[in-house]
Amino acid sequence: MLTLFFSCKNEEDEALNTKTETVTEIKNEVNRVEPPHWWVGFKETSLQLLVHHPNISKATPSISYAGVAIKKVNKADSPNYLFIDLEISEIAKSGQFNINFKFEDGTKLVQTYQLKDRDKAVDQFVGFDSSDAIYLITPDRFSNGNPNNDSIKGLNEQDVDRSHDYKRHGGDITGITNHLDYISDMGFTQVWSCPLLTNDMENGSYHGYAITDYYQVDPRFGTMEEYINLSQKAREKGMGMIMDQVANHCGVSHWWMKDLPFKDWVNQQSKFEKREPLNNSNHRRTVNQDLYASNQDKNEMTEGWFVPTMPDLNQRNPFMAKYITQNSIWWIETLKLSGIRQDTYPYPDKDFMSSWAKQIMTEYPNFSIVGEEWSYNPLLIGYWQAGHKNKDGYNGHLKSTMDFAMNQNIVDALNQDEAWDRGLIKMYEGLANDFSYTSPKDIMIFLDNHDKSRVFTQFNGDITKTKTALSYMLTLPRIPQIYYGTEILMDDFEKPGDHGLIRTDFPGGWQDDAVNAFTGKGLTEEQLDMQRYIKTLLNYRKESNAIHNGKTIHFAPFNGTYFLFRIAEDETVVHIINKNENPITIDLNRYNEVGLKGKTLTNIVSGQTIIWEDTIQLDKKGSLILTTKK
Amino acid sequence: MLTLFFSCKNEEDEALNTKTETVTEIKNEVNRVEPPHWWVGFKETSLQLLVHHPNISKATPSISYAGVAIKKVNKADSPNYLFIDLEISEIAKSGQFNINFKFEDGTKLVQTYQLKDRDKAVDQFVGFDSSDAIYLITPDRFSNGNPNNDSIKGLNEQDVDRSHDYKRHGGDITGITNHLDYISDMGFTQVWSCPLLTNDMENGSYHGYAITDYYQVDPRFGTMEEYINLSQKAREKGMGMIMDQVANHCGVSHWWMKDLPFKDWVNQQSKFEKREPLNNSNHRRTVNQDLYASNQDKNEMTEGWFVPTMPDLNQRNPFMAKYITQNSIWWIETLKLSGIRQDTYPYPDKDFMSSWAKQIMTEYPNFSIVGEEWSYNPLLIGYWQAGHKNKDGYNGHLKSTMDFAMNQNIVDALNQDEAWDRGLIKMYEGLANDFSYTSPKDIMIFLDNHDKSRVFTQFNGDITKTKTALSYMLTLPRIPQIYYGTEILMDDFEKPGDHGLIRTDFPGGWQDDAVNAFTGKGLTEEQLDMQRYIKTLLNYRKESNAIHNGKTIHFAPFNGTYFLFRIAEDETVVHIINKNENPITIDLNRYNEVGLKGKTLTNIVSGQTIIWEDTIQLDKKGSLILTTKK
Repeated sequence: MLTLFFSCKNEEDEALNTKTETVTEIKNEVNRVEPPHWWVGFKETSLQLLVHHPNISKATPSISYAGVAIKKVNKADSPNYLFIDLEISEIAKSGQFNINFKFEDGTKLVQTYQLKDRDKAVDQFVGFDSSDAIYLITPDRFSNGNPNNDSIKGLNEQDVDRSHDYKRHGGDITGITNHLDYISDMGFTQVWSCPLLTNDMENGSYHGYAITDYYQVDPRFGTMEEYINLSQKAREKGMGMIMDQVANHCGVSHWWMKDLPFKDWVNQQSKFEKREPLNNSNHRRTVNQDLYASNQDKNEMTEGWFVPTMPDLNQRNPFMAKYITQNSIWWIETLKLSGIRQDTYPYPDKDFMSSWAKQIMTEYPNFSIVGEEWSYNPLLIGYWQAGHKNKDGYNGHLKSTMDFAMNQNIVDALNQDEAWDRGLIKMYEGLANDFSYTSPKDIMIFLDNHDKSRVFTQFNGDITKTKTALSYMLTLPRIPQIYYGTEILMDDFEKPGDHGLIRTDFPGGWQDDAVNAFTGKGLTEEQLDMQRYIKTLLNYRKESNAIHNGKTIHFAPFNGTYFLFRIAEDETVVHIINKNENPITIDLNRYNEVGLKGKTLTNIVSGQTIIWEDTIQLDKKGSLILTTKK
Repeated sequence: MLTLFFSCKNEEDEALNTKTETVTEIKNEVNRVEPPHWWVGFKETSLQLLVHHPNISKATPSISYAGVAIKKVNKADSPNYLFIDLEISEIAKSGQFNINFKFEDGTKLVQTYQLKDRDKAVDQFVGFDSSDAIYLITPDRFSNGNPNNDSIKGLNEQDVDRSHDYKRHGGDITGITNHLDYISDMGFTQVWSCPLLTNDMENGSYHGYAITDYYQVDPRFGTMEEYINLSQKAREKGMGMIMDQVANHCGVSHWWMKDLPFKDWVNQQSKFEKREPLNNSNHRRTVNQDLYASNQDKNEMTEGWFVPTMPDLNQRNPFMAKYITQNSIWWIETLKLSGIRQDTYPYPDKDFMSSWAKQIMTEYPNFSIVGEEWSYNPLLIGYWQAGHKNKDGYNGHLKSTMDFAMNQNIVDALNQDEAWDRGLIKMYEGLANDFSYTSPKDIMIFLDNHDKSRVFTQFNGDITKTKTALSYMLTLPRIPQIYYGTEILMDDFEKPGDHGLIRTDFPGGWQDDAVNAFTGKGLTEEQLDMQRYIKTLLNYRKESNAIHNGKTIHFAPFNGTYFLFRIAEDETVVHIINKNENPITIDLNRYNEVGLKGKTLTNIVSGQTIIWEDTIQLDKKGSLILTTKK
């Protein structure tokens, strides 16, 4: 039963539908409408609905709701799609309305659509920054909070096998939620989980990067409610939630791959449809910047598939572009995210990525997006960051990029013997490159992640080096990210760099685990020590204005030592690296310009105090972190 | 006898001396006045004379010459110096005038000073650019044109010993002049000789970088007239002359080191005067860019001495700054240079270097300066180049920098086995960094120079690699520089990297040399072949609009090959590198966007023609250079 309501017609408002049909019964007669709902109150007043239903293109849609008007109805190449452009004006109020589809033969379909109120102020979507520390989790491998969802009927991959590195292990959203206190107590302030959306792939679906439904939480990870609850609980504990999104590709089992809306919805679509061999991306990421790059290489990079099981989305199709952007905003709004980590940033069409980021940052000016540019070349890292003065005029609108360059420099610096151009100088000269970045402190730094060999393995099991690298990273003007398990020395010694092994189960995440890293039960003394070490540093860092916002001064490595200072008005943090095997006395007068003479400094880790006099004796290899704070 | 002439006094011109004393007899009663003469007609109308004479500070100078006025007389810390600021107005004409010094006790000294007309139009001082190829010569080791000047009485280093790598060998200016035809026939268009000014050092004076008199040609290299003649003869043959200048340091035997004008004329002067140990530069060149660099490191870099025998000039002393700038302009005007190569560019005060370059470029807008930044980091190379948008606002006003980065990339690319991130990809990704440079084609590229191991040695005696590197370099959008002797495979195998050995004598440069590379007598077939190879390439390059100004397109390395195209409207040059040991057929359809299909191309080296069809077979390792030009 529908009650029709006619409002007074305003001449100036004729583009908008001012009649409102009150919805008394929710009807879902259409297969799929995406986004599944929307909100009132965005700056961007257009909304494009993807409607998927047999022969829906033969139908004419209509809507009667005050402030909502159909601006254009776009047919696709497949008869089973419509893309409906709506205008949602300022007068639109939250509520439900029906979209009425009338076919030529008179048959009708009704779909109820909801506009919600936004229940969080825009300026409260505050992104992550250099005051944060991010805990990165591979959710299948962190903790199995709900063994009942390990295997879900109707999904492709059914078997859970913890003995197999590339199969599902059962970790889930509830597992993360259960351990938010652990994460928070460790001193982290942001949680970045690898993708939690459905990856209904035949195999290897555990990692999450082959999404088959952009609006559904993978049932093996949990439900939409559980994801929303995770984000809310994290927020209650003072932590932000970063969502891992993938604009470049979907999984080959994505629902639309069986009925693609346009002939160019994915790249190399005709080859795919004819089951011809597909070209992988050439992975030559420099083509985005290279003024000499051939079109051939640019196309191979952008249109090649990342891997054969991941169809490469064509963001140059404007409907795809809109789809991805709306999907990102839908999740920000739904989960009240603090940030997005965008996968494989240099692979999609770069103009699209710029426009995508710009649209998000326009809606959420305080939000953060970090893009994955896996390059050791600071020129490429800098190119993407918002505001960088690029010769080609490109503005990435991207607040944060990833610092693979410093990651490598730190590892090399500690693994190499000291020489004129080797060893600590790699850290020093690497950090010096900050002069070229628009905003170095908005860059995310890490020692490892889900794709890189565990830092403990990169240092061949050397705990001192691992600690030194961590303490240095946590002192830099950067946003640090630590991969789950680093705090208990997880490794991939057996097959260094093997993805499945890197993403080993976190002990204690499964009910019968003999070792429990959350409680400490069964951890070795070395593991417990590392856990305490990171916890101490992170909890100091959490309140350290000097590290968050301080001025940076460092001194060229000297006699196997390297001094870095972070200086705020009321706090100076000193980071000292010593690579000497034997005790060495350092003349502190070299550092006089920092103004520490005579001051009492506290070792952040041990709590011991020293007075900064003419000299300091360094007895052990490793790092010292001192603070002037009492 | 002086005749006084009184002009009508112009009220508006009272700052200028309008009386003119006519000089009838040249008087040189003062020890030293520098610059020794000057010109009328510069944009910069001030001139500062350094006057050195016992107790000259007790004298008052006066000048009576129309258009020339003493603006200020500056005393120094030493009583034996005066720095006289002159204003040379537009009305000043060329001619001679006396500077009259009157002491307090009534005694007088007279010094005649000359202002010359500039006999070359400013716009004809045309610098080098990407249409040029530079031949770099270490003059002591190239050719001994005048055996009579090998040993000069009164100079410190007397012995000439060709068997000793670090002693003088007798090469000179006349030796270069004698072989200008050889250089020109080879296809070079610019000659850069290492410094030819006096290095009256106790030993190691052959290299020229320890200047002891900034206004004198080293008598062992020849006379001022010979240097002017060399430059003029080169010009007549269509070649420019690049002067190697050193603003950072002088030689410790420089005349002023015994009586330094100011307390801060050189850095660490008080230590030097007290014969205390001096600090060398820390050579940490990143401090010029690094926003986190400590003042300690900046000072060590800028004020440390390059080596203990080379006093570090203090360009922050404004009199020193003016001295260096005027000296540079004096030599440009005297020799009618096409360019300056400035040594150790990151070592002097960087604000001075910017102002120095700006002043020169203001006087000679078409001139070229190339600065030596020995860094493999494109960020540092790019920082110095004029117009680069640096975050710290620095504008280097420097047209050309040196491409140590691509130098290393080329060598690595050919020495490394092919892999995902090794081999040809180093060239490809290295060249891609051009996107970050203000003007890549104004950057100077080279495979070796007087400080780097000979390229033939870097390639372990592999002629194919050497040729490949050379042909690639000569095809790039760059200004190429080749070090003398590369054309005959000179090497330093015996002690790789040894400076003395790198700077081996050019065979045929000395009268009784058994081998003569100028005539070809006694050269091996391999040497003759390399000489022909470079000659052919350079002479093609000389007239190649595609290489000078063409668009660049390159393709990611593929199957051990790498294709680079330089494209002008009427000419396309194709550079192909093949690293495969066995014959390989390449599908040319990958390169269709270049539009060569069906065209006939000529191999620049062999003269053979091929038609660009669907495939090309590459039989041999090495490079091919093809052109569409008939």
